[in-house]
Amino acid sequence: MALWFDETYGEKIRLGLRVERSLYQGQSEFQSVDVVETREFGRALALEGAWMTSERDEAHYHEMIVHPALTSAQQLSRVLVIGGGDGGTIREVLRYPEVKHVTLVELDKLVVDVSKEHLSSFGVPWDDARLDVKFADGIGYLQNYSGTPYDVILIDGSDPVGPAEGLYESPFYESAKRCLIPGGIVVSQTESPIAMSNDFARIVKTLRASFQRAEPYFVPIPLYPSGMWSFTFASDRVDPLAFDEARATRIEGGSRYYNRAIHRAAFAQPNFVRKLLGT
Amino acid sequence: MALWFDETYGEKIRLGLRVERSLYQGQSEFQSVDVVETREFGRALALEGAWMTSERDEAHYHEMIVHPALTSAQQLSRVLVIGGGDGGTIREVLRYPEVKHVTLVELDKLVVDVSKEHLSSFGVPWDDARLDVKFADGIGYLQNYSGTPYDVILIDGSDPVGPAEGLYESPFYESAKRCLIPGGIVVSQTESPIAMSNDFARIVKTLRASFQRAEPYFVPIPLYPSGMWSFTFASDRVDPLAFDEARATRIEGGSRYYNRAIHRAAFAQPNFVRKLLGT
Repeated sequence: MALWFDETYGEKIRLGLRVERSLYQGQSEFQSVDVVETREFGRALALEGAWMTSERDEAHYHEMIVHPALTSAQQLSRVLVIGGGDGGTIREVLRYPEVKHVTLVELDKLVVDVSKEHLSSFGVPWDDARLDVKFADGIGYLQNYSGTPYDVILIDGSDPVGPAEGLYESPFYESAKRCLIPGGIVVSQTESPIAMSNDFARIVKTLRASFQRAEPYFVPIPLYPSGMWSFTFASDRVDPLAFDEARATRIEGGSRYYNRAIHRAAFAQPNFVRKLLGT
Repeated sequence: MALWFDETYGEKIRLGLRVERSLYQGQSEFQSVDVVETREFGRALALEGAWMTSERDEAHYHEMIVHPALTSAQQLSRVLVIGGGDGGTIREVLRYPEVKHVTLVELDKLVVDVSKEHLSSFGVPWDDARLDVKFADGIGYLQNYSGTPYDVILIDGSDPVGPAEGLYESPFYESAKRCLIPGGIVVSQTESPIAMSNDFARIVKTLRASFQRAEPYFVPIPLYPSGMWSFTFASDRVDPLAFDEARATRIEGGSRYYNRAIHRAAFAQPNFVRKLLGT
């Protein structure tokens, strides 16, 4: 019996992977959680039937949500990650000795527990003394936050529907800005400019309303609808292309996807993106 | 009844599009030919069950197989296109007034006939006086060619299995070189560095054996396995990044994907590609 698991997006496109075996099937109070061993992408995690990450392509996503921000940040001692319970994003953040404190705010404890057990190959240093994991809603966390401001906030959320919807709206970005140092950086995943072109354009424009600049950049993520994914870099002061060469060179060594040429190239916008954004 | 058409690649990954209706189903002596109206990508062409092109994303492929070569070519009066029976590639070539003669060598006349009828929205100028269409095997065509050398040869073939296999091997590249002016350019589609990483690396290295330089570049093609696709630019003399600014600026206007920033960015190699190529 040939097993396949297909993610169907918007009743218009679907991506299936051949599955060798199921490793975990569960249900939290928020969503269904699956881990499967696939023939092409190694172990893969799906939440609520949508592919999230896999051993084969996770470096594309996790390196690229982190390194454009952390190689260009003027200060990077305090980093907040919202979502990202598989741990790939914090693994990349913790590669910087300059980082002294990372807070991970994940809504769903089951995602972390399942990732620790079944995606241990991700090599996440869950025991790093600089890491503080909180199981909470990221929106409420930032609304109520009154501690030391963060230098960088990374928003590693799922699609803007259901519980994650508020992560892509103006009140949340205003909260994020309030919790950042002046000239701090927010990077958010911002969907596909092809499969979710309206969401993509709306979110980038919403970020532009809260920050002096908000530049989308693009990364191939084979498991996501259309395969062309975006992140957006928002800051009042920092230019993502004026990164620290020495820091970026150090991170380039030991990365599977990221390097300095890719960092620069990722910010190039195809004509259809310029048109979507009216630029 | 919800209709879907899935391309299954290598029994490991599959991409399905929701189909509103079938517009054409046929069989030539070489392959099955399908055109469907999809919900997400407009009309789409599939050959032998594999997605080839669609109204929504065809510009990514066709602009990017053509413009890096034609904006950097020192001479571009004579262009040869092997494959590409849907006509998108020749449409982009014919945008250059400098081009005086284009030969399209397509194996399968049915692909051209079906594309003319069902993909007329591609806007291919099939009646352009500069165009010469031949229905023949591209390998034999180049082996026997003894006419005026070409300035640029574009290889728009299907996957390197079955009849197209020889389009990715050394004897064919040697034929191509013999039919080019000194310092002429070959661009070939060279598969996905993710879904067909072995083929990709082998083909780039084979091109490097025949040409002084062969540089892969990358384009998101949502309909192809993994969504991350490659072309390779091969030449003994021409640097694809030293393109003609004025010519590229002219082409950038009126393009849906291509622009000068994208041209430069496409040649950035992620670390995993550098590793595959041993560079």
